[in-house]
Amino acid sequence: MNISQLAEQIQIGERRSIARGISLVENESPQALELLRLLFPKTGNAYRIGITGPPGAGKSTITNKLAFLYANQNKKVGIIAVDPTSPFTGGALLGDRVRMTDVEMNANVFIRSMASRGSLGGLSKKTKEAADIFDAAGFEIILLETVGVGQSELDIVSAADTTVVVLVPESGDSIQAMKAGLMEIADFFVLNKSDRPGAEQAVMSIKTVLGLATRYAQHTEETWIPDVISTVGNEGKGIEKIAEMITKHRTSLERTNQLTNKRSERIEERIRELVTEKLHQNFWNESRETMLRNEIASVLSHQRTPYDAVEELVENVI
Amino acid sequence: MNISQLAEQIQIGERRSIARGISLVENESPQALELLRLLFPKTGNAYRIGITGPPGAGKSTITNKLAFLYANQNKKVGIIAVDPTSPFTGGALLGDRVRMTDVEMNANVFIRSMASRGSLGGLSKKTKEAADIFDAAGFEIILLETVGVGQSELDIVSAADTTVVVLVPESGDSIQAMKAGLMEIADFFVLNKSDRPGAEQAVMSIKTVLGLATRYAQHTEETWIPDVISTVGNEGKGIEKIAEMITKHRTSLERTNQLTNKRSERIEERIRELVTEKLHQNFWNESRETMLRNEIASVLSHQRTPYDAVEELVENVI
Repeated sequence: MNISQLAEQIQIGERRSIARGISLVENESPQALELLRLLFPKTGNAYRIGITGPPGAGKSTITNKLAFLYANQNKKVGIIAVDPTSPFTGGALLGDRVRMTDVEMNANVFIRSMASRGSLGGLSKKTKEAADIFDAAGFEIILLETVGVGQSELDIVSAADTTVVVLVPESGDSIQAMKAGLMEIADFFVLNKSDRPGAEQAVMSIKTVLGLATRYAQHTEETWIPDVISTVGNEGKGIEKIAEMITKHRTSLERTNQLTNKRSERIEERIRELVTEKLHQNFWNESRETMLRNEIASVLSHQRTPYDAVEELVENVI
Repeated sequence: MNISQLAEQIQIGERRSIARGISLVENESPQALELLRLLFPKTGNAYRIGITGPPGAGKSTITNKLAFLYANQNKKVGIIAVDPTSPFTGGALLGDRVRMTDVEMNANVFIRSMASRGSLGGLSKKTKEAADIFDAAGFEIILLETVGVGQSELDIVSAADTTVVVLVPESGDSIQAMKAGLMEIADFFVLNKSDRPGAEQAVMSIKTVLGLATRYAQHTEETWIPDVISTVGNEGKGIEKIAEMITKHRTSLERTNQLTNKRSERIEERIRELVTEKLHQNFWNESRETMLRNEIASVLSHQRTPYDAVEELVENVI
């Protein structure tokens, strides 16, 4: 099967072809770019939902129950579970995933795990490309799930139309930290495991921070104000409220033209990434690699600084 | 004071000038590059030690006690404490740091915290540049401390000559994950808080993994084999053993010419980073930014794919 045949099979939603397409993207196959180019005209219909939070917050459970809910509404749901395999936390996510066979057996749901295998560089890019494949294959909902341990991981969910941040009562300390970066990415918060002690207080704390953060923002009737939803993921409690809030947020984005803005920004980011990649490929030809070897030797012997070496390499280029 | 005066002051070790130089680097000031260019000829004498591990492993304590030990040998020690401010873990490191006034008061020690403020991109680069400033200022030992929560953070310590990974008995689960990425970066392990239950078992587990990992590697008498050191950082127990192991590793690197190789690789990486930056700067001039706006509009209306847009932008360049 050649790439244009593969693209056709993906567009009719053939599952093994979808899997193969995502594998091409994941392995950075030279054919991936051509596949994505062929599929692009069919993208733009899926709604992308990012789900993040600290390890152990129950993101997988919520993602899976949410997928079930959409699947029961007869929607096709793609899940991309990103596992950054931090050497200190790695593996847990994929471990959980294996047990969720009930979701995997659902004909409307397609789960794909993506691990970074040592390098996070490019994981955010690959996740977005995999989402494009689901999109072109006619999936209406795409769930992007990732543990929020570092900034690069958060980049992944910022590729979503709606971003949900999952916390637990125990992440009380995190609320302090929320001021740092979560406010910028969260469209709303979920306090999961809310049957545990301290849940009410945690909700109050989040609301306080949210209040402080949005108080000085310019408000109109259209302004989206993040809220908190309490859930008990294991028992399926509150999942419908999450779905409702996602719909509400989507409606707000559409009404205010922000959905188009978001997608425009995503396209811009994508083009810039691809330009960087291409400039890099074009620049580092054999003769420049040879020049580089010589420059390294000069720098190592302190005859030249790396800064002068770069000037020399880039001279007369572009 | 102009930049060449600042460079001179840094070279004689003037503390406020060092602080100012690092601030220029941290804020990505346009003057930073010129400063680094002037200082480069004076670099290459400092030994760089990376210290990483999961949150709560006691990295700050160990870093500070180690700094004290070197300072008492009358060596000048620079500490760069990198705080990636993950929204879920952020702030803790800098909090600890404030309490370590005894170290800060030592005339031989200079502590600098670097936070990412939302973006990890460039933090690894800035850390290396700050280390170059310490190096040019005559610091003999540079300690790079970072919490190992994601790959980008680990990139920071891989900029070191010797990398120490700190674990605690409770990180038993992590030992499984060690196979993933730690083996590649750790020159040796420290099991801190080794007065806690499970310490002996943890040491055994690490040794087992180390044994498995190194068994199939080609061995000569020169081959460095990572080991485990038990410490109780709070009580200062085992800090000398860490210093001894660092010396042993350094000697091994020097004897096998690997220190030069490491530094050569670091220079190569630095030049490649700077080239990427420069290509990027040169490419995105005003006319290309205008082209980009038009391309985004075409892509958004599905008249063109992002892949074709990139072809058009990069055409005839380089």
